[in-house]
Amino acid sequence: MSGTAATPSAHTFDLRPVGYLIGLLVTCLGATMLVPFAVDLVVGNGQWPVFLQSAVLTMLVGGLAALACASGNTGRLGLQQTFLLTTGVWVALPIFGAIPFVLGPPDATVTDAFFEAMSGLTTTGSTVFSGLDSLPAGVLLWRSMMQWFGGIGIVVVAMVFLPELRIGGMQIFRTEAFDTLGKILPRAAEIASQISWIYVIITFACFLTYIAVGMSGFDAINHALTTVSTGGFSTTDSSFGAFQGAPEYVASVFMLLASLPFVRYVQLIAGQARPIFRDSQIHAYLAIIASFTIVLAVFQMWVDEFAVEPSLREAVFNVTSIISGTGYASVNYQLWGGFAMVAFFVLGLIGGCAGSTSCSVKVFRYQILLSAISVQIRRIHAPHGVFAPRFEDRRVTPEVLSSVMAFFVLFIVSMGVLAVALGLTGLDMVTSLSGAATAIGNVGPGLGPIIGPSGYFGPLNDTAKWLLIAGMLVGRLELMAVYVLFTSAFWKI
Amino acid sequence: MSGTAATPSAHTFDLRPVGYLIGLLVTCLGATMLVPFAVDLVVGNGQWPVFLQSAVLTMLVGGLAALACASGNTGRLGLQQTFLLTTGVWVALPIFGAIPFVLGPPDATVTDAFFEAMSGLTTTGSTVFSGLDSLPAGVLLWRSMMQWFGGIGIVVVAMVFLPELRIGGMQIFRTEAFDTLGKILPRAAEIASQISWIYVIITFACFLTYIAVGMSGFDAINHALTTVSTGGFSTTDSSFGAFQGAPEYVASVFMLLASLPFVRYVQLIAGQARPIFRDSQIHAYLAIIASFTIVLAVFQMWVDEFAVEPSLREAVFNVTSIISGTGYASVNYQLWGGFAMVAFFVLGLIGGCAGSTSCSVKVFRYQILLSAISVQIRRIHAPHGVFAPRFEDRRVTPEVLSSVMAFFVLFIVSMGVLAVALGLTGLDMVTSLSGAATAIGNVGPGLGPIIGPSGYFGPLNDTAKWLLIAGMLVGRLELMAVYVLFTSAFWKI
Ligand SMILES: [K+]
Ligand SMILES: [K+]
Repeated sequence: MSGTAATPSAHTFDLRPVGYLIGLLVTCLGATMLVPFAVDLVVGNGQWPVFLQSAVLTMLVGGLAALACASGNTGRLGLQQTFLLTTGVWVALPIFGAIPFVLGPPDATVTDAFFEAMSGLTTTGSTVFSGLDSLPAGVLLWRSMMQWFGGIGIVVVAMVFLPELRIGGMQIFRTEAFDTLGKILPRAAEIASQISWIYVIITFACFLTYIAVGMSGFDAINHALTTVSTGGFSTTDSSFGAFQGAPEYVASVFMLLASLPFVRYVQLIAGQARPIFRDSQIHAYLAIIASFTIVLAVFQMWVDEFAVEPSLREAVFNVTSIISGTGYASVNYQLWGGFAMVAFFVLGLIGGCAGSTSCSVKVFRYQILLSAISVQIRRIHAPHGVFAPRFEDRRVTPEVLSSVMAFFVLFIVSMGVLAVALGLTGLDMVTSLSGAATAIGNVGPGLGPIIGPSGYFGPLNDTAKWLLIAGMLVGRLELMAVYVLFTSAFWKI
Repeated sequence: MSGTAATPSAHTFDLRPVGYLIGLLVTCLGATMLVPFAVDLVVGNGQWPVFLQSAVLTMLVGGLAALACASGNTGRLGLQQTFLLTTGVWVALPIFGAIPFVLGPPDATVTDAFFEAMSGLTTTGSTVFSGLDSLPAGVLLWRSMMQWFGGIGIVVVAMVFLPELRIGGMQIFRTEAFDTLGKILPRAAEIASQISWIYVIITFACFLTYIAVGMSGFDAINHALTTVSTGGFSTTDSSFGAFQGAPEYVASVFMLLASLPFVRYVQLIAGQARPIFRDSQIHAYLAIIASFTIVLAVFQMWVDEFAVEPSLREAVFNVTSIISGTGYASVNYQLWGGFAMVAFFVLGLIGGCAGSTSCSVKVFRYQILLSAISVQIRRIHAPHGVFAPRFEDRRVTPEVLSSVMAFFVLFIVSMGVLAVALGLTGLDMVTSLSGAATAIGNVGPGLGPIIGPSGYFGPLNDTAKWLLIAGMLVGRLELMAVYVLFTSAFWKI
């Protein structure tokens, strides 16, 4: 602060750049609230003042915060600042995103509103609101928009911030196409602009296809926003149950596209078609989807004597929905029996590909872990042999491996702790376990009588809701990025 | 075989030493069947021919196998032979241990008999038999005896074989008190004899204390055998529900003693009292038991308005029973609500200390994993720092760490695969998940309407039983020791 001698403290603990960037993002979020404002104004449902007030309030606070912190140097974000920025964004944006839910219909409590906004911006898609069909158009659109922002945000974080912060083995993707070895913010901006175009194009393609298979314009835009972000919010309480048939196939395709590594699309556009077809993570992901789909479909035909087409369709749609972390449900698959429930529980713990909008453990980590186990086995056989686990034909360094393993252990332990805590609030075992998994994995629906695919999170008690909010945040930022803030080592210079 | 030139093949794939040792152990098992034979003869219940026939048959087959393989060289067991021996023992002994259940009451099917014997020798303690109270004394005693043999067997395996085979990070215990750097079999024999005395003494003390608190002689001997082995078979369908009060405290103490590292007792007898009191694994284990006990007891007093003493007693007894992997139940703790169910599910996934009769992940692995995660966090903060996870004031080598992590991943993935497979046989989700956990963790009771603490495994279909048999075997031998046999690398020279 003084600035006479060396100024290391100004560099390490200057929170102004963090505040400035968060302030800017909050201001942007406020500006986007003018979209639902305009929609409600056009529809004429009288709810437009809610979004106007929210937009003004949000832009005002965000703008003032940015101004107050504008003197900071954003050119050289340190490690600690980058960590604080990442978590700070996903705490600040939901606070402001929740305002419209409190000011107008559904006139939610602070807990419910923050839950819904966190569920939106983390692309979890668990909802505490029921009677969605009777909510104002602006509110529905705002929920979908938050998911869409959360989706593009997490792709940028996964491609730039997490590799830089060495979180969960994401550093393995550091030398990917984008590594220009520049400063973190210019690189983030560059990638964000490239990815954003792809994101917009896929969303638009999804929207048009939904229209083509018969969805209304409003349903199509909302579901396009929540499909491509693998968010899973819907415009009706029955989720995709209201759109059975062709829309399920469309959704399956776009949920799949949204859960592939976005860097491959950039390469594809640049004329490199090989990478996307030779990506072993994509191969493994498709193989998992295909096997679960076939087994579930055959199970359905055999046990419940369903016809072939609906069996296959419901299987591929719901499997893709859960493994990609979208979380739409077209049927109450709990009625398919215990096998389906276990299968969907396990699918949610697998997740999509790294560098996409999906969450959970992700396919590449399982690939690395299984490769490490096979190395273990070879080492048992030949104790003095030198083997290294491999991923995509490259050696996995011990640092990446232990980072991936630490992620997996943290994921499982966090799930166990969250499940026990949810149990303490009085929930049954299936709800506690699946609630913990669906929150940390950002999937959306849980299992059991309350939060199952045809239920919602509204009836839970407030303590459970706050626990799930914490779970969603922690899961979205790959655990370690949040946990590190709670260690004393982090706050030391 | 020929022996003219170099004879590597004779050394690497000579199955005779394995066959010889398994044959000897089978013969010994047959000889011990003369105990239930004698008991049934004395009691005069007419079932003694069953055990005489079984004993003769078992000793005959075992003896012939040993004779046929006697020409092998057991002095220098290779790595592959040691692996085959370890798994071979736990496959062969249950086959013969099951014979009495088929030949006489309960006149079980082959599946049920093998399930019960595997559940016994792996010290799992899940039972497919009901109406235990009306079974002949010899049958009940035989079940308890198998658990007792399984318990001492696994202590020796955990102290000698697994460290030597580098399974699941157990190599960290290689330099413990016993490492005489000798050949594996002499060392095994030496440790077995030392440990056996301690095991017998603890069992006898347990037996006397059970008598002192009012158990009948027969109940006391059976429960002493299954307490000290953390096996959990009982003589009644109501398990420890039939012995509420003082016996629960006695059982808690001895289940705890049985799940501590046995090497500490050897040191204690040799006059070294410090190690047992300074063992960080024991400290962590006691802390976990204490916290779960207090929370569950308070929960009981608060929610169900139970009195203080029974709340504390039921909490400490059932928590110790599940975390140690014994699996006695004194009440249907599923009635305590969702929190209790999740808590007991999680407890079963923790397990006792390494080098004891208990199974599951075990405390030392969680200690190493958490230490590795804290290293990860420090590395994020200082990317170029050199940190190593620690256990008991020693650095954990990367090899041990990756071995522990591989174990944890295999444990969770195996549980997921087994749960999905159990679901496919038509079981509900809670039964599938808890069944997979209780089998691989060798705990005993599951959760849900069928295999819960007041239920039994009899009503399951045969496919589910065989899946659980595989789970028990794989879990007891720390997964990798069995899985390695299914890799092609293992069978190459
Ligand atoms: K989702
Ligand atoms: K047990």
